[in-house]
Amino acid sequence: MTSHAESMIREVMASEAYRTAVATLTAEHERTVQNIITLTQIEAPSFQEATRAKAWREMAEAHGLKDLQIDAEGNVTGLRPGVGNGPLICVAAHLDTVFPAGTDLTVRREGTKLYAPGVGDDTRSLAVLLAWLRAMDAANIQTRANILFVADVGEEGPGDLRGMRYLFQKGPYKDRISAFITVDSPDMEHIATGGVGSKRYRVTFEGPGGHSYGAFGLVNPMFAMADAITRLGAVKVPTSPKTTYSASVTGGGTSINSIPNSVWTDFDLRSEEPSELDRLETGFLDIIARSVAAENAIRSTRNGPITTNIQKTGDRPAGQTDPSQELVQLAHTAIAAHGFQPRFESSSTDANIPMSLGIPAIKIGSGGTGGRAHSLDEWLDVAPEPSIRGMAAGLATLLALAGVV
Amino acid sequence: MTSHAESMIREVMASEAYRTAVATLTAEHERTVQNIITLTQIEAPSFQEATRAKAWREMAEAHGLKDLQIDAEGNVTGLRPGVGNGPLICVAAHLDTVFPAGTDLTVRREGTKLYAPGVGDDTRSLAVLLAWLRAMDAANIQTRANILFVADVGEEGPGDLRGMRYLFQKGPYKDRISAFITVDSPDMEHIATGGVGSKRYRVTFEGPGGHSYGAFGLVNPMFAMADAITRLGAVKVPTSPKTTYSASVTGGGTSINSIPNSVWTDFDLRSEEPSELDRLETGFLDIIARSVAAENAIRSTRNGPITTNIQKTGDRPAGQTDPSQELVQLAHTAIAAHGFQPRFESSSTDANIPMSLGIPAIKIGSGGTGGRAHSLDEWLDVAPEPSIRGMAAGLATLLALAGVV
Repeated sequence: MTSHAESMIREVMASEAYRTAVATLTAEHERTVQNIITLTQIEAPSFQEATRAKAWREMAEAHGLKDLQIDAEGNVTGLRPGVGNGPLICVAAHLDTVFPAGTDLTVRREGTKLYAPGVGDDTRSLAVLLAWLRAMDAANIQTRANILFVADVGEEGPGDLRGMRYLFQKGPYKDRISAFITVDSPDMEHIATGGVGSKRYRVTFEGPGGHSYGAFGLVNPMFAMADAITRLGAVKVPTSPKTTYSASVTGGGTSINSIPNSVWTDFDLRSEEPSELDRLETGFLDIIARSVAAENAIRSTRNGPITTNIQKTGDRPAGQTDPSQELVQLAHTAIAAHGFQPRFESSSTDANIPMSLGIPAIKIGSGGTGGRAHSLDEWLDVAPEPSIRGMAAGLATLLALAGVV
Repeated sequence: MTSHAESMIREVMASEAYRTAVATLTAEHERTVQNIITLTQIEAPSFQEATRAKAWREMAEAHGLKDLQIDAEGNVTGLRPGVGNGPLICVAAHLDTVFPAGTDLTVRREGTKLYAPGVGDDTRSLAVLLAWLRAMDAANIQTRANILFVADVGEEGPGDLRGMRYLFQKGPYKDRISAFITVDSPDMEHIATGGVGSKRYRVTFEGPGGHSYGAFGLVNPMFAMADAITRLGAVKVPTSPKTTYSASVTGGGTSINSIPNSVWTDFDLRSEEPSELDRLETGFLDIIARSVAAENAIRSTRNGPITTNIQKTGDRPAGQTDPSQELVQLAHTAIAAHGFQPRFESSSTDANIPMSLGIPAIKIGSGGTGGRAHSLDEWLDVAPEPSIRGMAAGLATLLALAGVV
């Protein structure tokens, strides 16, 4: 890392303000844990984040944020003003989880471990933003930059980053944010500097259907779909920039003795590099067209041909933040200085949107340890020492970036 | 048709007994319609026929059948004894429908049309057997043959002909029935003399699963399954004996961003000719094995290979009743003599089991007109004239076969 970043982080960590802030994180650790539990138990599937958003706003109200509000998309935003004329930087955590309404979200606490769906991804981070605010307030920290704190909607699959799209492309802070940190999941050792782009499709193959015996010889949408999946499976993609595809979920048909009227598959296409993703998408759509044409040529269309309904269900832009960016240097240095072994990765997070717009953006972890994200047995260990050390590393990054005055 | 069959049918139709019987069918037509409505509204999915079986037995009790009982498989059987030393012939209709428990079976009557799931397939036939019994009783008809009346279970898909398997291969009438007629659905113009054999499979393809991006390169059961379906779609089958296949219903996978752990498809293989069906089945199972091996060769098995769970869900034997058989000749002649244009077909019905055992067997219609079988908007027209004419044709067949004394 650059000596510039190292000296900035050293300066922050040596300051009385930072020590007071970390002492506050330590003193208030159990309050942070209670916030995690409270927020985890408020369900927040993508598109149904409103109750949790309201709860987070109420918790944030004690911290004197300016313009604390819920925007038109559902994000909670609140500004911690700088001393004047500074840039606007943004730190965010996402409100939504992958768990549908009705999932049992009761947190089970065993020693220092909390078990509940969504507890680590990304509810802990929502509580960590509040802990940082309290720590900064307790240490009377003032910054050069204005810091926008955001609890955002729509990070998980179907949300398709709608919260970030609104923040960066439509809302009142559009075109004003100069650097972005999303705090997502406990893991401190992976810093995402690459945003994997994805295109998602549900392709429904439709045909006339008919009796499996009596109407044999008619086109069968299952054959068109299988041919498309088979052709996709033969596509060669580069390992760098990493580019991938999957046929993930499928369904359709009515009974064993019927040629189906309709079958569908969900496809996931991804790449670190926008041009590779576009190439893959073009090839994929061409495959669908060829497979349908082949089935309509091989079997009879006398009762009607195979047609498709191609529904784009996700479109996350790819992007990169160059490792030479100050934001990346500061995060890497701060995290290493707190005893972790950071490395860079590409992933698909809220940071994809600013990255795709050329705004320096990274994902960092919220601290603690956890596992089984996206499963019902998700867990989070809040043992104080590593939990606070992780929070301190993130706070040092934020303070160095914002500039303590 | 042979002059022998023609003279037998002519003799039956000219008899006072037959005229009295048809007059009874006519006089009691509304009662038959009421029986159709009552039975239709008792749900009877395959494997859950007991309530309807009990209701049919109670209706049959008035008709002095001997040994009226529900056998160990759930079939209702009752004997109308002949005059002594005659053969045993059997006439049957099936109790079960394709509609799951909880389906709204309320019959909507509009003019002469009845709308309800299962009304024509095969509930009307259950009422027609009762109408024949009443007509024979009213005309004091005695026969040389003993006639076994059967309301049987398990004709539809998943039932896999379990009622007939028990009757012909295990129950008290095993090895005693010399001719078999199943009355199935309204259509009078198709006489089934061929029993299409079928083999049905649910094939589940399983693998290690994983993240669609992070674990890209691992084997994906969707690719193995698609390859198998594609290979099946390229199989050439003869048009005579008619041989068919279908990939009919599919499902599996958990989320758009996961390589699935498990996906499945239901396959239907059929042929008029047992050796062709065996050939198709062998080829199909070979395809499954090749597709799995190909996927395990193309992609990484480091977290585990693709495996399959191959479940045989149906196995209906093929069979034929030679058109020269007296049973076929009598049915064709009687149906033609009642103003219909009969032709022979192959289909998959209760008659498959006796056909496969070399016992002369056919499927005939129950009369009236109907449509949309196996759909929620199934309908049956009970306009008296064609309805009674159809019943009379079937009864003439039965009386000629049984021999009126």
